[in-house]
Amino acid sequence: MITRRRALELLAGAASAGLVCTSPVFAQAVDGGLDGRIAEEGLDRSQVMETASWLSDRIGSRLTNSPGMRAAEQWTLAQFKRWKLRDVHAEPFDFGRGWSFDRASIRMIEPRSRALSIIPIAWTPGFDRPVQHGVIVAPIAKDADLARWTGKLAGKIVLISAPKVVSPLTAPPVHIYDDAELRALEAPYTPETRQSDYAADMTARLFAERLDAFLAREGAVAWIRKSYRDGELVHGDTGYGAGYRVGRSRAVPGFEMAAEDYLRIVRLEESGAPVVLEIDSSVRFHDGDHNANNIIADIPGTDPDGHYVMAGAHLDSWIAGDGAADNGAGVAIVMEAARILSTLKVKPRRTIRFALWAAEEQGGLGSLAYIERHIATRPGQTVPGAAPSWAWSRRFPISPKPGFDRIDAYFNVDKGSGAIRGIFTEGNREVVPIFRQMLNRFAAFGASSVASGPAEGSDHSDFQSLGLPAFQFIQDPLDYESRVHHSNLDTFDHLAPLALRRNAVILATVLMETANREEALPRRPMPTGIGSKQQ
Amino acid sequence: MITRRRALELLAGAASAGLVCTSPVFAQAVDGGLDGRIAEEGLDRSQVMETASWLSDRIGSRLTNSPGMRAAEQWTLAQFKRWKLRDVHAEPFDFGRGWSFDRASIRMIEPRSRALSIIPIAWTPGFDRPVQHGVIVAPIAKDADLARWTGKLAGKIVLISAPKVVSPLTAPPVHIYDDAELRALEAPYTPETRQSDYAADMTARLFAERLDAFLAREGAVAWIRKSYRDGELVHGDTGYGAGYRVGRSRAVPGFEMAAEDYLRIVRLEESGAPVVLEIDSSVRFHDGDHNANNIIADIPGTDPDGHYVMAGAHLDSWIAGDGAADNGAGVAIVMEAARILSTLKVKPRRTIRFALWAAEEQGGLGSLAYIERHIATRPGQTVPGAAPSWAWSRRFPISPKPGFDRIDAYFNVDKGSGAIRGIFTEGNREVVPIFRQMLNRFAAFGASSVASGPAEGSDHSDFQSLGLPAFQFIQDPLDYESRVHHSNLDTFDHLAPLALRRNAVILATVLMETANREEALPRRPMPTGIGSKQQ
Repeated sequence: MITRRRALELLAGAASAGLVCTSPVFAQAVDGGLDGRIAEEGLDRSQVMETASWLSDRIGSRLTNSPGMRAAEQWTLAQFKRWKLRDVHAEPFDFGRGWSFDRASIRMIEPRSRALSIIPIAWTPGFDRPVQHGVIVAPIAKDADLARWTGKLAGKIVLISAPKVVSPLTAPPVHIYDDAELRALEAPYTPETRQSDYAADMTARLFAERLDAFLAREGAVAWIRKSYRDGELVHGDTGYGAGYRVGRSRAVPGFEMAAEDYLRIVRLEESGAPVVLEIDSSVRFHDGDHNANNIIADIPGTDPDGHYVMAGAHLDSWIAGDGAADNGAGVAIVMEAARILSTLKVKPRRTIRFALWAAEEQGGLGSLAYIERHIATRPGQTVPGAAPSWAWSRRFPISPKPGFDRIDAYFNVDKGSGAIRGIFTEGNREVVPIFRQMLNRFAAFGASSVASGPAEGSDHSDFQSLGLPAFQFIQDPLDYESRVHHSNLDTFDHLAPLALRRNAVILATVLMETANREEALPRRPMPTGIGSKQQ
Repeated sequence: MITRRRALELLAGAASAGLVCTSPVFAQAVDGGLDGRIAEEGLDRSQVMETASWLSDRIGSRLTNSPGMRAAEQWTLAQFKRWKLRDVHAEPFDFGRGWSFDRASIRMIEPRSRALSIIPIAWTPGFDRPVQHGVIVAPIAKDADLARWTGKLAGKIVLISAPKVVSPLTAPPVHIYDDAELRALEAPYTPETRQSDYAADMTARLFAERLDAFLAREGAVAWIRKSYRDGELVHGDTGYGAGYRVGRSRAVPGFEMAAEDYLRIVRLEESGAPVVLEIDSSVRFHDGDHNANNIIADIPGTDPDGHYVMAGAHLDSWIAGDGAADNGAGVAIVMEAARILSTLKVKPRRTIRFALWAAEEQGGLGSLAYIERHIATRPGQTVPGAAPSWAWSRRFPISPKPGFDRIDAYFNVDKGSGAIRGIFTEGNREVVPIFRQMLNRFAAFGASSVASGPAEGSDHSDFQSLGLPAFQFIQDPLDYESRVHHSNLDTFDHLAPLALRRNAVILATVLMETANREEALPRRPMPTGIGSKQQ
């Protein structure tokens, strides 16, 4: 196994530009044929950081249907074509409005002048011109809180978060899995039986819409929430509401403020020093085209029945950073695997398909659109106000399409830029020995753990919910959860270059192995919903 | 000893408001008389966080002679009077210009639009109106680098820092000393023999002035340096140049940019995408009064010869945060010790004097002004361009004033808001057993370590250089060095409330003990400079 210490050395070393990455240890670990050529192309002639830089530095944040996402659609299509992938195309699906912000600032002007760190919340409106208003600290988290503030919010900027103080950061921001943690992931997995009431869940999630209506009715000027991390980090992301749908965008401008700045305002108000803020926020809704696009590219296989294996990563991001780790890293890994295999002119048995999804951040909508178009459908949504995708995986019966039989594997990449340490098997016991054998060659990279349980939800989840073999890799967390995920720190410098090179090599190798297998990866039986609570 | 785990629990617990802090362990540790009354006043009726909040939240940053510092001078004078300290007054000394900024922003407008995190560098000019210019990456660190860029900088925004990448943060940001670290501080101390050439040192330090002249001559629009920390932190501080002196302020606007934002620009430029920035920066120089002020307040003693002991902390700060940990914390501790002792109407043998210094951040100028006025002088500066304070402690002979004999101890507080864990004795071996005995009562707080060597330099250093018994406490680092010191995170939420309460109790107790001793604390012989390299 790779030690944590060694991993950190590699991580630090990888930050130097121009590092040649073919390691003797890897040369020993792979066999001499295709594996070695993949490693050579992916380590010595890597373009993964150039791809990551273009996505994050040059294009930047890529909220679905925003100008950034449109630029990314065009650029990734062009790159796949440049690298001679086949059948490169965009698959549109109905999404809704794009949104972007040109500038946004909030300044405290009373009791003293100070610039504050803020970001507008996606799909909320801005102001035509700078406005100045007093604040009210009115913690509101649920319907029962609304009555208390009736008649008190008119003309005010409403601070809706509870003023919970910042906790001292006593763990290292960057985390590398040690052997014990990896072993724990391999321990036998017992699925949790979810008993949640999906309609009630949705009602709770739609509270943001009711709060918006309340604030509008009460004449509030704007609302501000506290960042959920400290250290002047801001996010501006939203839950799975439907503010991107025409007619359901918010009426009242919303902002997220750095925790330190938010709490300063609360203290000043409590100490009897009324706070006045000046807000300057210019946002745009983009309604020219409500379709979002998945980007698809193939390396054709020889299988006469058109079976394929697939790798995917979501191309969209949130708004505060440059979408580098979430998920420029995943896109760069998938695109680099495509480039490596295309460059090597591989001829796999099954077609290898690469997908860059839109609208993952709004609930995996891009991959779901692909599934509903090509693989299987489920009954329509019945919860009032819920998005069409809401609780999709819990609806029965499943109606398979002809393509259901042709997809033999899906590999998702959406966990930042940490080194791949293995793979999650989602409770599919039959694939465990297959992945053990397949990843064994990466033991020198510390990348051969086979976890019994599921990864966190991402674009593989809806494939998995159909019984299909759909997986995500185990990756070192680095500072993804501690600082980077959805925040203004999601920028290129928080990527780990050596890990990304290796990850692309691992993905390309796993794809070729899976595409060339005699037997398809074992599927689980198609779920019927019997015995599980439906929506 | 207090364990690290327990210290962290206390730290986290202290963040809850309204915590009653008298601990049984402390009640046992102190004797029943004055010590107990000090502890009760300082733990149960503490005002230390109110003081820290006023300084940081209400007043904010306090660059010497800026409006914030003027407000702090007035407020601290008023507080000392309200608390019935005696002989409360400001002691002015010639400093130079104040400086402040109203707003400052830099936006990338090519190749795409993005707001960047920046701060103007103190005592550099701003612009009358927003300007837009291209950039040039021109790393310049020393005189030898200048020639390379001659003729290339006209009309450009010059990025002067080497594009060194961000290192992964693998240590916890918050650090609490463990027993081994404290024991190491107690190990025998061997003074380093400094052999540096002070004139050459000064020449290097004045490079900023030569760089400014070069940039002005070359027609550069502005210069930008990279932040020395990652995570979007910025500072805007300067070295010990003399930009605050009339006639020596910089000609070219300077800015510090978040590391991530700086490195993005470098990558874009390197990849052939020219970057254009828009800078909007409005700064002000304050020339109405070039005097800075130390704030002095006494608790009179009964000693007929006017001997006194003293505690001090610098009231000034840098510009990016609110001067909370550096050094609102130290000021709040010193002021709270004053409040506690004044409230208890103590009658010490020696007078106890409290000093809030100006211009520590420009080289301990406030405490030096006090020393030169009341205690001792040294020969004038002879290095061309150097500030009058430069290498003060290395000039001989010392000329003591009558007050030299009357100051019997000086205690400085300038290490953030971490819990006091003991005291540095600066190589003065005779005070070791005295402090051991004095701090023994705080063993339950983990505050009884007596370090053999010196603390880092601060306002005690110039006292110490005269052979006077001048000390600084050992304090837990918390996130002072990792994130907070001089940065935009130097805000109230990074203070540790329980530690500040305890620290004020410890300081008040140590002051009373020292003021009431039969013998003064042992001095070291007045240095003569013989055997040491002079300027």
